[in-house]
Amino acid sequence: MQWDFTSKVFETEVINLAGTQERILRGGRDRFNLLSQAFEGVKQIGVIGWGSQGPAQAQNLRESLEGADIRVKVGLRPGSSSMAQAREAGFTEDNGTLGEMYEVIRESDIVLLLISDAAQADNYEQIFDALRPGATLGLSHGFLLQHLENEGTAFPPSNNIIAVCPKGMGPSVRRLYEQGRDINGSGINSSFAVVQDVNGKATDQALGWSIALGSPYTFMTTLKNEYKSDVSGERAVLLGAVHGAVEALFRRFIQSGDMSDAEAFKNSVESITGPISKTISHEGILALYQSLDDEGQLKFARMYTLAYPIFYGLIMEIYDDVECGNEVRSVVAAGKRLSEFPMGNIAGTRMWRVGEKVRAERDENNIPLHAETAGLYAALMMAQVDLLLSKGHSYSEICNESIIEAVDSLNPYMHARGVDYMVDNCSTTARLGARKWGPRFDHIIEQEVFTGFDSDIEIDENRIQAFVQHPVHKALEVCSELRPSVDISLGI
Amino acid sequence: MQWDFTSKVFETEVINLAGTQERILRGGRDRFNLLSQAFEGVKQIGVIGWGSQGPAQAQNLRESLEGADIRVKVGLRPGSSSMAQAREAGFTEDNGTLGEMYEVIRESDIVLLLISDAAQADNYEQIFDALRPGATLGLSHGFLLQHLENEGTAFPPSNNIIAVCPKGMGPSVRRLYEQGRDINGSGINSSFAVVQDVNGKATDQALGWSIALGSPYTFMTTLKNEYKSDVSGERAVLLGAVHGAVEALFRRFIQSGDMSDAEAFKNSVESITGPISKTISHEGILALYQSLDDEGQLKFARMYTLAYPIFYGLIMEIYDDVECGNEVRSVVAAGKRLSEFPMGNIAGTRMWRVGEKVRAERDENNIPLHAETAGLYAALMMAQVDLLLSKGHSYSEICNESIIEAVDSLNPYMHARGVDYMVDNCSTTARLGARKWGPRFDHIIEQEVFTGFDSDIEIDENRIQAFVQHPVHKALEVCSELRPSVDISLGI
Repeated sequence: MQWDFTSKVFETEVINLAGTQERILRGGRDRFNLLSQAFEGVKQIGVIGWGSQGPAQAQNLRESLEGADIRVKVGLRPGSSSMAQAREAGFTEDNGTLGEMYEVIRESDIVLLLISDAAQADNYEQIFDALRPGATLGLSHGFLLQHLENEGTAFPPSNNIIAVCPKGMGPSVRRLYEQGRDINGSGINSSFAVVQDVNGKATDQALGWSIALGSPYTFMTTLKNEYKSDVSGERAVLLGAVHGAVEALFRRFIQSGDMSDAEAFKNSVESITGPISKTISHEGILALYQSLDDEGQLKFARMYTLAYPIFYGLIMEIYDDVECGNEVRSVVAAGKRLSEFPMGNIAGTRMWRVGEKVRAERDENNIPLHAETAGLYAALMMAQVDLLLSKGHSYSEICNESIIEAVDSLNPYMHARGVDYMVDNCSTTARLGARKWGPRFDHIIEQEVFTGFDSDIEIDENRIQAFVQHPVHKALEVCSELRPSVDISLGI
Repeated sequence: MQWDFTSKVFETEVINLAGTQERILRGGRDRFNLLSQAFEGVKQIGVIGWGSQGPAQAQNLRESLEGADIRVKVGLRPGSSSMAQAREAGFTEDNGTLGEMYEVIRESDIVLLLISDAAQADNYEQIFDALRPGATLGLSHGFLLQHLENEGTAFPPSNNIIAVCPKGMGPSVRRLYEQGRDINGSGINSSFAVVQDVNGKATDQALGWSIALGSPYTFMTTLKNEYKSDVSGERAVLLGAVHGAVEALFRRFIQSGDMSDAEAFKNSVESITGPISKTISHEGILALYQSLDDEGQLKFARMYTLAYPIFYGLIMEIYDDVECGNEVRSVVAAGKRLSEFPMGNIAGTRMWRVGEKVRAERDENNIPLHAETAGLYAALMMAQVDLLLSKGHSYSEICNESIIEAVDSLNPYMHARGVDYMVDNCSTTARLGARKWGPRFDHIIEQEVFTGFDSDIEIDENRIQAFVQHPVHKALEVCSELRPSVDISLGI
């Protein structure tokens, strides 16, 4: 079994995903009582940074560790504008849970490094120097690993290096944890990786961290695999591709002459972030297709079969650029550029101004599930699934990074606030990536998918059969059973 | 003087470009009689490859060297489909001027490596091994230098390594050389670089090569500077950016409701490849602005000032990705992908189908010079000029790579066949780059330039003054005087 590990603290189990086996850890509040054991010898966990993951993880950890004799202390740059927010969340200098980041690093037995990628790239040497001998460094993202590789260097050899990577953005990690007070097990799934284990405790520290975050289930990966799937995923189906796709669809619907701006928006963006995402979340991707009538299925199938190979090639290009370190080099170079040339917003264009109005007047029960839009979106998802499969990622990683994170974490936010808002307000690494690749998807869809759709070429029936029979549907079902069915309540 | 060199054969001169001095070499058929001296000791020049530059350079060299005792021999892969074309051009096995590439490399005193970038990346070790001790390796492009850097290796130490890089595509290099039979000095300017000089002959070999190609004037650069300006230039104003810009303009004109598809095409693409390019070619960029009436100047200035900083930032991003080797890594990775996932065409969309019709019915004297389109295009050009200036490129390189190559080599081809044709049929490195960056320009123009233009923000008057007073106008004038004014005759 490729994805196997041993815990001295938690009871784990083996699941069967599309014929492959993986060992996983189920979460739940009933396991919080094992955290002291998982964090044996740990007096303080330092949470460094207050961006997307920082507030969510610091608060979840503090709540989960109530009663255990472990302090959760937030470390920030002196004068950081986040200080006030941390204090508001109850992390204060007075009660000893807020401090200067390097001090907190020096004091802590486990250091969770949740500062921005650019800050990690700029400061990793100082951070490594500040780590106590024997302390554990925790990451929620593999960016730093790739940056160290690009720089020809490595993690400090005498520390545990672990990662727990929630498959959703910070606000979702927090919101679903809160909902978990009423529905045990509600949360965002996480992957974990052990990069270095110098004292035999790394695995249980990682598992404890994940349990404390409220992950309904935790699966194993390597930090490199996490990095590759995460950074390419946000450039593809999670963010970049979905932006490009809805730009192309909106334009097409407008140009057809049959739809008003508002209708075009509803049949592209609203359709994806609303009924398409909800159907996938509750019943899987295949249910999308099966929910359509005969005519709808024909349209879905035509769009799907034409788009799939185009998307597969483009996602492979993204994966190549991620794997060889190009995307990380670009992000690091951008760090130097952005102070003088900040990224602009996408929200000002006709489409997104229409979107604002549509959302304001939305009737949730009256959003169309457009068959061609559904076919295009499903092709995007399945192309990413198959590409990650071909690169040896586990089914857990694939389902979570390509499907569950989209329909349960990101798309609900986009539904509430717009795809434009999401692209303009995610992490710098994701924003840069979405800006680089989103327009590629837009152009390639117009140039190759729509031209094919409108031509008289016959589609490849095998491709829709491959979709219908794809093992991922069953794997997704198993993954879904591992967490309670909770619609994230955003209250925005 | 930064750009200085010594020739033992040719009379050179120093020109003054915007207050900086550069040594250059003027071309002309009256200098062909010095070629034997420049190529002293050379019995054979091997031209390897028959793509864009290969046919042009092999034929120009053969014609220029008529009477000298130097054979020009074409080397190709056995079974290459280009064999037939080379034979048709008079390079045959029978007359000893066509052979297998490695044999030709082994026999030649100067080897001009004009195979594709991907083939260079795949085969450089074998090629270096086949070079005779003391032979000279010539390149027309700096791609291989960057690839060697990425791989942590270098050119073979005991060979001359030189470059002559025509600032136009192969067909232009050939066509203008042919026109040079009637108008002495007609041709495409070239840069040259000496990377390694093991026998003191490298500079004159490079200069001779450039004279033989018909370069009206030859300026000095480093191969790294050539690479950076060339690869970023084709991603920006030469190809990628111009494609993105016309997509955005066409869409805007259609959506305004004031123009038919054909009119939108004329005011975007036709305007740039026709009157805008011609004006710049004959009278400079500033003349573009000055040719407009008051209302036109206001529109030009508004578009220019809003677009310039946006373009500057994006071209800086391109330059960063070129400089650190990312773009070369991407191209090499694509080589492995493209057999299974070939690049599609952009020609099938509504816009380019309209273009075909518009070109067929074109009245050359009735193409509008659209003020906003001109402002946008000028901003693109000037942003590239300024970015290259900030990176220490010479004025010759900047004028040729950002302006002259566009308006005298590429845009006339696009005018004859369409921007879509050009993007679909250039080198793989350029096609990949245009596909990667063109859509970025499209989106950023719609998201930031047009939204700014349509808002009530006031423009920065200083920016248009900086344009009017920019030293590049005078530099371009000097560069233009170094070559006869010849409109390329395409006969397509």
